[in-house]
Amino acid sequence: MALSKNPDKKQINRLVELNKKHHAARDPKKIFEGLRKGEKTALAEAITLCESARADDQQSARQLLQHCLPHTGKSLRIGITGVPGVGKSTFIESFGQYLVKQGKKIAVLAVDPSSEKTGGSILGDKTRMVNLSVNPGAFIRPTSSRGSLGGVAQRTRESILLCEAAGYDVILIETVGVGQSETAVHSMTDFFLLLMLAGAGDELQGIKRGIMEMADALVITKADGDNTKNATRAKSLYKNALHLFPANENNWIPQVDVVSAAENKGIEKVWETICSYENLTKTNGHFQKKRKNQQEYWMHEALKEQLLHEFYNNPAITKQIKQLTKKLAGNEITSYDAARLLIELYQHGKKNI
Amino acid sequence: MALSKNPDKKQINRLVELNKKHHAARDPKKIFEGLRKGEKTALAEAITLCESARADDQQSARQLLQHCLPHTGKSLRIGITGVPGVGKSTFIESFGQYLVKQGKKIAVLAVDPSSEKTGGSILGDKTRMVNLSVNPGAFIRPTSSRGSLGGVAQRTRESILLCEAAGYDVILIETVGVGQSETAVHSMTDFFLLLMLAGAGDELQGIKRGIMEMADALVITKADGDNTKNATRAKSLYKNALHLFPANENNWIPQVDVVSAAENKGIEKVWETICSYENLTKTNGHFQKKRKNQQEYWMHEALKEQLLHEFYNNPAITKQIKQLTKKLAGNEITSYDAARLLIELYQHGKKNI
Repeated sequence: MALSKNPDKKQINRLVELNKKHHAARDPKKIFEGLRKGEKTALAEAITLCESARADDQQSARQLLQHCLPHTGKSLRIGITGVPGVGKSTFIESFGQYLVKQGKKIAVLAVDPSSEKTGGSILGDKTRMVNLSVNPGAFIRPTSSRGSLGGVAQRTRESILLCEAAGYDVILIETVGVGQSETAVHSMTDFFLLLMLAGAGDELQGIKRGIMEMADALVITKADGDNTKNATRAKSLYKNALHLFPANENNWIPQVDVVSAAENKGIEKVWETICSYENLTKTNGHFQKKRKNQQEYWMHEALKEQLLHEFYNNPAITKQIKQLTKKLAGNEITSYDAARLLIELYQHGKKNI
Repeated sequence: MALSKNPDKKQINRLVELNKKHHAARDPKKIFEGLRKGEKTALAEAITLCESARADDQQSARQLLQHCLPHTGKSLRIGITGVPGVGKSTFIESFGQYLVKQGKKIAVLAVDPSSEKTGGSILGDKTRMVNLSVNPGAFIRPTSSRGSLGGVAQRTRESILLCEAAGYDVILIETVGVGQSETAVHSMTDFFLLLMLAGAGDELQGIKRGIMEMADALVITKADGDNTKNATRAKSLYKNALHLFPANENNWIPQVDVVSAAENKGIEKVWETICSYENLTKTNGHFQKKRKNQQEYWMHEALKEQLLHEFYNNPAITKQIKQLTKKLAGNEITSYDAARLLIELYQHGKKNI
């Protein structure tokens, strides 16, 4: 039902009714059955349901996830990051198609809490993955941009579970390496891939400090034409640099690979690197250990977020923080005393409710 | 009054009374006056007062800090980290004496929350800084080992303020680079120094991932005798590696220096590096900005610690977390649902109080 340019009240009410019926049709059991049969529309609907802020949808979403849980955990979860322009979409297009040819079902998700402001910089436009998006073995889901990083991370983690229950073998989670989101993606994946450009000494321009040490592998992109030599040089530079880093607890030494998506070179090697990692960490138990730690990490993160949200959204607290921040800057109070005053205010306020 | 091997009740009661009198004598105003006159005993007493867990001491401590606050902020705060055996004490002994010769008053503090278990690995033994500890221009305070990292960090930050009010120009804060404490020290200092050994390719053995990217300067220690060549080679290796890191927001490029405390070489150069940093960041405003951010950071950290402490110390919550952690591992519940259940339990419990 299309809305006329100047809708009257009657029209609006009819739309609201239609909307309710549409929502009422979302039966978690039915969605679950479709999803298990491998229907992409059911998977898409499942993700939408989990993303919905409506209370009734949230209840259905909890039920749906409960159905899915016994069928989760079997995929390989790969985080992919890199600055805008490094060629993430192009890499995923090639890498994804390669994996489908190996008989894998692959899903592509994205975490980009900034997209609300920027209008969606990643995966917003499926046309950037022309071939992959129409490939029957691939499922691509644009980023959910609503809310805080914590909220986006939670929904992405739920999407991973839904994709796993739908039988996807490899899940790629794309993020931009310029904010907080890459830490979140690192904490929800088994393997973390950092894409880099081979430039003139400024390879890391724009990449946030600390990301390089999170990476399980670096991939130098656009290693084609005139750039081939640069890319090879960058590979040996980074290989040496990574050796200076302290060893990982899981005994994995981060690898550096070189790819050209344009010339379709090096993709297979990246997959081999990831398989070596999977093999090593599943053998020494670190794969399972990391998964377990991640589950507990996200429980505690969600707890922290909810407890702090309640505190920081208290209007009296907000007002007081502003004043105390000024006092801090003027050396009129210690950080600890400021915190103590705020806690007292908070507890006092609660007692008065 | 010495306690006999088998003290009777009377003896113990007399000791308790004596202890009360001793405490009653701790007048914050008097301590403050002594401290401002540069009396080391007053400074030591001030730190002990702030470290005390007694409620009346804590009240006096708050008053004392309030007196001190207008006189704080003028020192240069330097964090020093490195694995055990790298030569932190030896470096501080040389570096400290050099600074005193330049007319500076220097204080040495330590953060080592692990020392409770290990019996105090750093600064526990003043004899390791034989000359510095008897130098009139230097004040050395062993680590306070009681409590959580948050608690230790808070007390160290208060000690910094006390040392500043007592007129110390440079404050060195030592920590071991193997735990969480170096992040805390990094967040309370203006400049962060990482000491490293030049070894056979395993220079970073034992150093936690991520520390190298926090460092404003690396110092290769023990560059003497047969090791001189190794140290020079390590310097150039690290210089190249650091160039691959993304640039700092404050425009500072981390430096690599080489020292021999035994041969008293390179100490002056380290001080020059720190002065260049201070000069650059005070000119471009990042010094002040960092201090301001650190004050706010510690206020929010203290808030978080106190809010979460209350939550996690609720016996019903502790019990439930154990059960939910098992369910998480068995894929029986999502991390988010587990968190939601805990929050509901917590809020319900509060209502019932």
